[in-house]
Amino acid sequence: MSHSIAIIGASGYTGAELIRLIATHPEFEIKALAANSKAGKPLAQVFPHLRHLELPDLVTWEQIDYDQIDLCFCALPHKTSQEVISKLPKSVKIVDLSADFRLRDPAEYEKWYGNPHSAVEMQGEAVYGLTEFYRDEIASARLVAGTGCNAATGQFVLRPLIAAGVIDLDEIILDLQCGVSGAGRSLKENLLHAELSEGTNAYAVGSTHRHLGEFDQEFSAIAGRDVKIQFTPHLGPFNRGILATAYVRGDVDAVETALRDAYANEPFVEVLPQGETPSTHHVRGSNFCHIGVVADRLFGRVIVVAALDNLTKGSSGQALQNANLMLGVEETAGLMLAPCFP
Amino acid sequence: MSHSIAIIGASGYTGAELIRLIATHPEFEIKALAANSKAGKPLAQVFPHLRHLELPDLVTWEQIDYDQIDLCFCALPHKTSQEVISKLPKSVKIVDLSADFRLRDPAEYEKWYGNPHSAVEMQGEAVYGLTEFYRDEIASARLVAGTGCNAATGQFVLRPLIAAGVIDLDEIILDLQCGVSGAGRSLKENLLHAELSEGTNAYAVGSTHRHLGEFDQEFSAIAGRDVKIQFTPHLGPFNRGILATAYVRGDVDAVETALRDAYANEPFVEVLPQGETPSTHHVRGSNFCHIGVVADRLFGRVIVVAALDNLTKGSSGQALQNANLMLGVEETAGLMLAPCFP
Amino acid sequence: MSHSIAIIGASGYTGAELIRLIATHPEFEIKALAANSKAGKPLAQVFPHLRHLELPDLVTWEQIDYDQIDLCFCALPHKTSQEVISKLPKSVKIVDLSADFRLRDPAEYEKWYGNPHSAVEMQGEAVYGLTEFYRDEIASARLVAGTGCNAATGQFVLRPLIAAGVIDLDEIILDLQCGVSGAGRSLKENLLHAELSEGTNAYAVGSTHRHLGEFDQEFSAIAGRDVKIQFTPHLGPFNRGILATAYVRGDVDAVETALRDAYANEPFVEVLPQGETPSTHHVRGSNFCHIGVVADRLFGRVIVVAALDNLTKGSSGQALQNANLMLGVEETAGLMLAPCFP
Amino acid sequence: MSHSIAIIGASGYTGAELIRLIATHPEFEIKALAANSKAGKPLAQVFPHLRHLELPDLVTWEQIDYDQIDLCFCALPHKTSQEVISKLPKSVKIVDLSADFRLRDPAEYEKWYGNPHSAVEMQGEAVYGLTEFYRDEIASARLVAGTGCNAATGQFVLRPLIAAGVIDLDEIILDLQCGVSGAGRSLKENLLHAELSEGTNAYAVGSTHRHLGEFDQEFSAIAGRDVKIQFTPHLGPFNRGILATAYVRGDVDAVETALRDAYANEPFVEVLPQGETPSTHHVRGSNFCHIGVVADRLFGRVIVVAALDNLTKGSSGQALQNANLMLGVEETAGLMLAPCFP
Repeated sequence: MSHSIAIIGASGYTGAELIRLIATHPEFEIKALAANSKAGKPLAQVFPHLRHLELPDLVTWEQIDYDQIDLCFCALPHKTSQEVISKLPKSVKIVDLSADFRLRDPAEYEKWYGNPHSAVEMQGEAVYGLTEFYRDEIASARLVAGTGCNAATGQFVLRPLIAAGVIDLDEIILDLQCGVSGAGRSLKENLLHAELSEGTNAYAVGSTHRHLGEFDQEFSAIAGRDVKIQFTPHLGPFNRGILATAYVRGDVDAVETALRDAYANEPFVEVLPQGETPSTHHVRGSNFCHIGVVADRLFGRVIVVAALDNLTKGSSGQALQNANLMLGVEETAGLMLAPCFP
Repeated sequence: MSHSIAIIGASGYTGAELIRLIATHPEFEIKALAANSKAGKPLAQVFPHLRHLELPDLVTWEQIDYDQIDLCFCALPHKTSQEVISKLPKSVKIVDLSADFRLRDPAEYEKWYGNPHSAVEMQGEAVYGLTEFYRDEIASARLVAGTGCNAATGQFVLRPLIAAGVIDLDEIILDLQCGVSGAGRSLKENLLHAELSEGTNAYAVGSTHRHLGEFDQEFSAIAGRDVKIQFTPHLGPFNRGILATAYVRGDVDAVETALRDAYANEPFVEVLPQGETPSTHHVRGSNFCHIGVVADRLFGRVIVVAALDNLTKGSSGQALQNANLMLGVEETAGLMLAPCFP
Repeated sequence: MSHSIAIIGASGYTGAELIRLIATHPEFEIKALAANSKAGKPLAQVFPHLRHLELPDLVTWEQIDYDQIDLCFCALPHKTSQEVISKLPKSVKIVDLSADFRLRDPAEYEKWYGNPHSAVEMQGEAVYGLTEFYRDEIASARLVAGTGCNAATGQFVLRPLIAAGVIDLDEIILDLQCGVSGAGRSLKENLLHAELSEGTNAYAVGSTHRHLGEFDQEFSAIAGRDVKIQFTPHLGPFNRGILATAYVRGDVDAVETALRDAYANEPFVEVLPQGETPSTHHVRGSNFCHIGVVADRLFGRVIVVAALDNLTKGSSGQALQNANLMLGVEETAGLMLAPCFP
Repeated sequence: MSHSIAIIGASGYTGAELIRLIATHPEFEIKALAANSKAGKPLAQVFPHLRHLELPDLVTWEQIDYDQIDLCFCALPHKTSQEVISKLPKSVKIVDLSADFRLRDPAEYEKWYGNPHSAVEMQGEAVYGLTEFYRDEIASARLVAGTGCNAATGQFVLRPLIAAGVIDLDEIILDLQCGVSGAGRSLKENLLHAELSEGTNAYAVGSTHRHLGEFDQEFSAIAGRDVKIQFTPHLGPFNRGILATAYVRGDVDAVETALRDAYANEPFVEVLPQGETPSTHHVRGSNFCHIGVVADRLFGRVIVVAALDNLTKGSSGQALQNANLMLGVEETAGLMLAPCFP
């Protein structure tokens, strides 16, 4: 059986990644692609790498006939996303890839994103889209909010540890490197090849990155108390990939056990043998997340390192995994592509 | 129906690429993986990006039970390849990815590769593996010789033009840039990141590259006379991709028509609208080849540019396409992955 | 003795490169830096890599007191450059890095650049800035027009061959790869790291690149007849460097001799032993140009490969070399920095 | 006045970097270059980027006439270095770039490097080469031990904070990204472009990196008690640069003040305005180190980020700075090259 899919915001990287993945999905058919600034163009003009696919031309999101759509991916910038989604018919299931429905508390949203939320009534409805931890809610949801890509990576490391009570909640540091596609297709000087290649820098230093809103919300909910971590992202000279290095306090075996228990039956998250650590090279282009656990030389301190592809498991792959659940399709459909190495 | 596959030389890049592609192939099952220097190891130690797959551990090629194998990919270095293949049972179909069976004339082989051929009797049997031009022979072959990756790219541009008689056979220049995975996983100073990134150089300048043996053989056969082109490859600071820029003499519309006619029904080769040219970014990780045709400002001169992924369409993807034909499977099976961009 | 220098257009890459080079120049002192869109800012905000230098804050070009300036580098976009330069006092020597004064014929300028020239009277005055071939004229000039970076590279290869009459003038093909800094600091999708890294493409295919105006003008003047070459540039995933691969017809020894004779006493241009070819890696960040000559396997055909850094020898280094001549300073002052490898 | 210099180990990256820097040094003259495995070759064969320099051909280190040498840089691998240095005449001043004389305690050396020290008697003589903190001892030393490049970066951040007593000594985490030239010119699979570009990974996780020997020795000496930090390096897909992100506990203004006080008069170390952080892009190819201080959102926690070029300030630039001191030359001679950006 085939499901009809629309993608709003098809001219950005997460839109393109959705199309790449759905291209080999056995049960999804793309019926509409919207990108208001490029409406009227064939997708191949915007993304020549997808020219072999038979796809509808780009339209505006208002032009889509939503009666024919089962599920709509919304890959718009935050703020725009809430405005569009609030106008979509209630009959359509939605997976939103923006930040707009990740934070349940409107005040937190405004604090981190700087504007009041214009679709507060929908915030309550939205399910947080970290598949492995919200699987049942997602399966029955109408609106799922995709997580931040950094937020997903950090949570794959830390949620099981907080839930199992095996680490000190006041001593969590998350240091992270993110590939440049995480910043989207925006035209900024620091994203130019000439400025980015062959070097690296930290940004949002001092734990000011917006994805901390998600960490605060989720970790505090799990712990039943306020949990505030330190978080420093770095921008790396690579297109795809997030490597998160977490510094925690606890027993290394307890940490490993908590992670193994959490992911024992997960098709996309793999815990490496203790002492081994992952590389973003080995998950590039795939929906897999590799996690490694190592004891520090200092007693009681543990380093956990996780690697995933920000565009896939961190964003569009996660979105597709959620859409599969929402439409009753095999959860791994379209997502078993092996990483592209070298 | 499932076919049983072995890969000899599974610890190199073309071996890994075969496994990546077969991972989503509906009818192929990998039964044996050989890499004599790493026999006994799980593949995930050699290629951690494939750790999610259930695969047999590495063995020596001698340890494989060939009675259970329908088809064997041989991804060994040239010279070694002929020695191994000559010892394999005749019941096994073979797709060789080395240079050993590409040249029909043993003297030409020795001229380009420096050693006498040790399996001359098999050279006659081997079919040249450029799928789009040897499809019928490949379908009924026992031994197919995969082409050089540069050789494939150049032939996609030039074969139709020579066959159609639309270009001057004495005035063909092929200028080419190749990604570094084309050099394999060999430990050489010039392949180190520190020496290769952020710059480029020509190599084998003066038309001395070994793939010229293939060009000479194939182009002369098509033309019915000696055809010798000029060919300069460059090593680019990227992992995957070949961009070939061909300078030819003829009428631009005749050139375009010859290419369109040749590839009208080909699933993997696309001729762009005249005046547009391709980019390796847009074929990365896929089995597609994009070709563009442009008239030069000088009357009667035409530039044809082709882009493909050396590891996929230039090597392992081609090999899988051929294996599909040899086993009577849908030719595109396992090969419709969309390019991985960005 | 110290000379007072101003740079107009200090917020672009060629402006920054000028400052980098002048930083160790024994006799030049930067007295004014102009960038109208960023006037008022300290340069370290625009280019943090220059923060260790004591430099004047950015001003508008109109704010500069030209009475105190001996020589002004003008690193503005074309069209803007002619407008500004036509208003500067005649007492100031000028090295222009734009395209505005490279072409002596206003019709040619308009043909390649699309707009009529607004300072036609100054076009006659301007000296073409390819130092090695216009040294005397440059030394006595008031206005020197820096060459295109691709144009410089191609001319280093071809001028001596055309002048010596050792190649067929109707059979010249120049294939070239250029690093991304050649496109400047402009915000375009194809210059983003995510779109440019890990691949390559041709552009301006069909001999439509603007630098052909310079080739046509210069080569025809040398030959005393119309000379029109074919020229295809490629955009490579590296920041600095141009590699030009020229296909010519002639005797390889005559070609080598013509090049050796031309550059025998040149401090910055080195002809490698016959058969060796250069790499952009080995000139990165320096004012050197390496040239290699190789005989093709086809009799009478020769490949000449040249490598230089587009920002240095191709642009700002050339400009400084010219400024040295114009001010009577040692020609190599500030320019003997060794390449930055790896 | 000119000083005569020899470099032993001239075929590695730190050797090449020394030559690059000395190329513009006003008072140093390279009299001998040794690389035993490549003795007899001209340096231009090993490092074509240095071909413009008039340099002696490579010899073995035994062939050097040390009577004519004032100072010898020794850029050999550890273990080999101590064997060679112990045989050099005592009349020659030595700057060693290996790890062999960094650790004063032979037991610590053996613990971190795995072999007993074979020149224990010289360990006492050696001065630790972190210029800014051992300036006087270096000026009068015969043998100076260059620091590890990661060790240098971490110490630029942490020494002033430990000395000033403004941070908690038991809560120091140093997270670091290092460019690939830090691994030298060694032929290893993980250093190939194909394996390293476009991704990142941690290594020596669990605070097992050898440079911890230096941190332990130095920090404990400053503090007058045992200080053991956590340290995780990452390998980044860039050639030059180290970015260190340190997580410390203390008052942000006290931290900033300690750093400003320490580096107020230092020509190469710059503390950015509070809240700003550095990028390795902006120190590439130079001897500068940029340091930024930011308060975390969590009270009492501070992040300090430092950037330098591992080959320059982290290794060969530091070595030259020390040599200048040892020979009574201006400390900054040959070292004021501006960073090479983009």
